[in-house]
This record gives sequence, structure tokens and C-alpha cells, in this order.
Amino acid sequence: MNLLAVSGSLREKSSNTAVLRAAALVAPESVLVTLYQCLNDLPHFNPDLDTEPGPPAVLTFRALVRAADAVIMCSPEYAHGVSGVLKNALDWLVSSGEFVNKPIALINASTRATHAYASLAETLRIMMAVIVPEASITLALTNPKLEAADMAGDPVIASQLRASIAAITQLIGSELRHRQ
Amino acid sequence: MNLLAVSGSLREKSSNTAVLRAAALVAPESVLVTLYQCLNDLPHFNPDLDTEPGPPAVLTFRALVRAADAVIMCSPEYAHGVSGVLKNALDWLVSSGEFVNKPIALINASTRATHAYASLAETLRIMMAVIVPEASITLALTNPKLEAADMAGDPVIASQLRASIAAITQLIGSELRHRQ
Repeated sequence: MNLLAVSGSLREKSSNTAVLRAAALVAPESVLVTLYQCLNDLPHFNPDLDTEPGPPAVLTFRALVRAADAVIMCSPEYAHGVSGVLKNALDWLVSSGEFVNKPIALINASTRATHAYASLAETLRIMMAVIVPEASITLALTNPKLEAADMAGDPVIASQLRASIAAITQLIGSELRHRQ
Repeated sequence: MNLLAVSGSLREKSSNTAVLRAAALVAPESVLVTLYQCLNDLPHFNPDLDTEPGPPAVLTFRALVRAADAVIMCSPEYAHGVSGVLKNALDWLVSSGEFVNKPIALINASTRATHAYASLAETLRIMMAVIVPEASITLALTNPKLEAADMAGDPVIASQLRASIAAITQLIGSELRHRQ
């Protein structure tokens, strides 16, 4: 199974990106977690540019989302809102529809960031993505300087991330069985 | 008085941008409404780049906001959320604080776009901007193809925009008198 991990922060030492890297570390062998690292290459969304074929970076992003069995997402909250850079990436998927029926694990790396999380969930719902409740967890990171390896080595965080991945892969597995 | 107009859309024929151009057309002579046209030049927000002095386009944007007596803002809603490109611009002002105590006329060009408007208002509040209620209006645009001149020539829309500008200039005027 192939999960695309999308972080809402471009910061090199972002906790949100570290969470996704930790998810890749603790995932079982049968699950490949690939971090999307080209958020910065997407142009600013402009409906005038949202034509066939579209900007190259957008095409790549759409193809990666389309090819993924699910998306695992973790984003900071900026000023009580979704990070602009992540929302910009989502804006590029609204008309093309790659998120329709796509299972999403929406991970919150902060117990206090409730506004952005709710707003992001609302946007994903209206884009017809399937937010998987059991895979959508809030982590209580005690230290903002934790790196991916630290998180993967922390029994509580690692266990939460493994449970999230298990929930989303279970859903994908049962969907695949239904199609057969 | 000097109002900076910020549209949340990069679309050339954006209704939101047209609303701001119409505001410039109907404003009294004593009020200069300047449309900020460089939203597309701002880099994607990255805290690692948010250092002194900062990216040139960001410095220009911050200087324009600082120099403005108030900001007049009109943004589309994308997928029940704030347009990523506008949120990205706001993300650049969080740490530098140009919006603190800045009067804002938050104009909604759609009676149906309630999610993004509420989310934008929440972000502006946490940035300590002053959303002026009497200046923050919702327009019932009957035709999405209306251009700025059409709006300025429409008695209802023109009157709403004039009232919004009057409310914000009245507030600025009373603040200036208080400081004297």
C-alpha cells in the first residue's frame, strides 16, 4: 500500500513534517509512506491557469495523489487558520477531483490547534475526501524539537502513529476486497 | 486617507477584485484606494525565510500595509476555506505585526460563502486587526460577470461600497482626532 504524506509546513525542522517522517519509520513493511516534498514548487492557485494540461508541478502533485491509496496529512495552524501553503495545494485539487473518495488520515500535531484542524476537515469534506476517524489522531508532542527518529522511538507517539496507519490500511484493504 | 485593497483571487476577471476596483471608483476624492497587485509575487510562507530582512516582495507588502490607514479586503471562498493565496499573504504578516490595530473592511462578494468569511475573520482577529462591523458588508452580486464599472454604476452596490468606505474613514478620522 502506498500512502502519500503531505505536510502543511515548509520549515526544514517542522514538527509536522517530522510526524510524517516518523510515520514512515514505524509503518509496517507492506506500507510505503512517501513524503511529498514539492509543496513549494506549486504555483499560487489561479483559476486562469487551471486549464488543460495545467502547470507541470500541479500535474505531478495530482498524479501522486491519484496514485496514492490514501493521504496522510499533518499541518501547523497559522493565526487560527490552515497554513496558506497547504490550502494553496488543496485549491489546485478542487476542480480536478483527486481527493474524491480518497481516504485521509488527518493528524494534528498540537492539542491546542483546533481552528485550523476543523477548517481543514471542512475543506476536505467538501472536496469529498473520506476523513477516516480512527486514523485521524491528535498527538500531544511534549517537546517541539523532537525529530522523526525521536518520535518513532517514543512508545506513545509510535503506537498512535501505528494505530493511525493500521486504521487507514484496514479501510483500504476492505475497500479493495469489496471491489473484487 | 489611504486604503490598501487586497483581493484573495488572482483570476484576471475576479469578481472580488472587481469589487475592490469599484470601491476605488466610488470612493470620495479624499480617499485613495490602491489595489495591491503583487499577491502572486509573495513566496510561499516559510518560517525559515521569515528572518531579517526577509524576501523583497514580503518587505514591499509589509510596507504597503504599514503605510495604509486601513485595509479593504475581498476574497473568494475555495472549498469552504480561505483562498490559499490570500492566507499565504496573511501568514507573512503574523510575526511582523502590520495588522495589529489595523482597521479592516472585510467585504464578502457572495451571500453563500460563509465558511471562508468566518475563518478569515477569526484569523484577522487573532492577528489583532480591527474588523470594522459597519464597513464589513456582504454584497448580493446578481451577475458573476459584472465588472468594476458595472458595480460602480449599480445604485445598490455603489451605495453599499460608499457606506463601507464612509464607516472605515469615519473610524480612522475619529482615531486621528483622539491622537491629536
